Amino acid sequence: MIPEDDLIARHFAPIAGPGAFGLKDDAAILSPPAGHDLVLTKDMLVAGVHFFADDPPASIARKALRVNLSDLAAKGAEPAGFLLGLGLTDAIDDGWLAAFAAGLADDARAYALPLLGGDTVRSPGAVTLSVTALGYAPSGRMVRRTAARPGLLLAVTGTIGDAALGLKIRLDPQTPWALSLDDAARGHLLERYLHPQPRNALAGVIRAHAVAAMDVSDGLAGDALKLARAAIEPGQPASPIMRLADIPLSPAARTALQADPGLIETIATGGDDYEVLMAVEPASLPALQRETAALGCPVSLIGELMEPDQPPRWIGSDGEPVRFGRLRFEHGASA
Amino acid sequence: MIPEDDLIARHFAPIAGPGAFGLKDDAAILSPPAGHDLVLTKDMLVAGVHFFADDPPASIARKALRVNLSDLAAKGAEPAGFLLGLGLTDAIDDGWLAAFAAGLADDARAYALPLLGGDTVRSPGAVTLSVTALGYAPSGRMVRRTAARPGLLLAVTGTIGDAALGLKIRLDPQTPWALSLDDAARGHLLERYLHPQPRNALAGVIRAHAVAAMDVSDGLAGDALKLARAAIEPGQPASPIMRLADIPLSPAARTALQADPGLIETIATGGDDYEVLMAVEPASLPALQRETAALGCPVSLIGELMEPDQPPRWIGSDGEPVRFGRLRFEHGASA
Repeated sequence: MIPEDDLIARHFAPIAGPGAFGLKDDAAILSPPAGHDLVLTKDMLVAGVHFFADDPPASIARKALRVNLSDLAAKGAEPAGFLLGLGLTDAIDDGWLAAFAAGLADDARAYALPLLGGDTVRSPGAVTLSVTALGYAPSGRMVRRTAARPGLLLAVTGTIGDAALGLKIRLDPQTPWALSLDDAARGHLLERYLHPQPRNALAGVIRAHAVAAMDVSDGLAGDALKLARAAIEPGQPASPIMRLADIPLSPAARTALQADPGLIETIATGGDDYEVLMAVEPASLPALQRETAALGCPVSLIGELMEPDQPPRWIGSDGEPVRFGRLRFEHGASA
Repeated sequence: MIPEDDLIARHFAPIAGPGAFGLKDDAAILSPPAGHDLVLTKDMLVAGVHFFADDPPASIARKALRVNLSDLAAKGAEPAGFLLGLGLTDAIDDGWLAAFAAGLADDARAYALPLLGGDTVRSPGAVTLSVTALGYAPSGRMVRRTAARPGLLLAVTGTIGDAALGLKIRLDPQTPWALSLDDAARGHLLERYLHPQPRNALAGVIRAHAVAAMDVSDGLAGDALKLARAAIEPGQPASPIMRLADIPLSPAARTALQADPGLIETIATGGDDYEVLMAVEPASLPALQRETAALGCPVSLIGELMEPDQPPRWIGSDGEPVRFGRLRFEHGASA
């Protein structure tokens, strides 16, 4: 294995932000601007579980950063920096690390999320990434998951289901519905699985208009249920109702769904979307939709939060409730 | 595997600090007190590398927290909170998790380091822990590794070598020198390997008196070289000289060293000490020693920082320079 000091100096020190002391210290410092809270989030990714071990190293790096950036976006927080824990197997060589660091550097720049520190260790089993992302939000203004309540509308950014369909194609390129897609459509779905598109550009708008929010990582239906049920003071538990026909789809996902209507379950429960699910006051929806559209990412109304004595409902195009086999996506890149 | 929500609610939510929203949100908030910087550090631990897979789960949890607490102590930072990334193999059951969480809770309380958030994932290879610890230091007052310069004295807290000797006994209980130790001495060394004793009680004194500092995790001699060479503006690179006879030893380590004088290499380069190595102005040493002794943890003078054109030197009891086979400890619990 490459000595840690070498590896840091060559691959990671160039990405280090102010306060990181060129990664030559044991710790970094960060001084939140006055009147701001620090927002902290952590997502771990394991080869064979959250990504494929043979994914391009730059893509693995981007995914690790972006799933964390997505949490900051959903909380209405502006990126401040990140720490990286890197567990490397003996198979990792310098070329892999150089490519990984290049992808990391690109995204750290693009999303204004400098590297603040981390740790590199030997991981005998599988490459393991642990990212702690830090952001800022004006004091008391982080958009909480727990602030939802009955009477709010459910809205979601971008399009849903692309990544889950892309994973299906990745696992079985010959799956019948995939053969109905042209190369561009297949490429779109595969790309959305490999490279999440976190909605950090919308953070300010989300903060301004969402009562509660979370990023959609484990499937839209299950995450909607989570958002509804996480509600505590000052909100209260709620129950989601969602119209499946209103779930925003990319042209590629729409073509796939036409080829196999059963894919609605994959779309609604499949995970890895990294879009932002919001609970909003009905009166706030027009401004939210106008401002997000102006930033190039439309927000779609998909349902609402009902009183908790109602059962959660996913309504099909025929107006009848749909039952899903499971609501929660279990990550399993090697499945 | 136990569902993540269950696992969090039962084992980890009770340890959550304010700002963690009962671990029901995607992120936590933290508001550093006015006039303070946030200090960030991250250490990852892997079963079979940094601890034994069959160590008591509570001890694994304590070690994961304490190696991070040790970094905060060395930086003169007061604990603020931590995030925990937990990669679990399929062999981990609820009993293991309950014991792990109990150890974590005890230390989180004892060191005033509340749990702020984290992530739990499946790790096919080995149990993997990733801790990001956060602390506070008055603005601009974090004790940097990079502030060392020639002319400063080298001092270290507590005793050195216990953990490395404990690891040797753990790996080979019949090693000849170990047979010269009584049960209490063996127990002391084993305990120091299993449960690091981070010096957080000394953080304020370290901040007041140390020019530069780092925690000793990879061996005293190698870490002294690191501290000396990390010096950049406003410090400058330096070269360490260390008197091996002045390295502070526990009675158990002293007995072992008498039985086998060759153990001085294990003591000086063996790692896992989690003591604090400091570079201090000669005029500051008396106050540093007085104030740390008053807090129950003596600090010993072990050497000094010379001009960088001098070679690093480790001086034996006979006054002659000693050569070590290697200066840096590579973690290898399964070695």
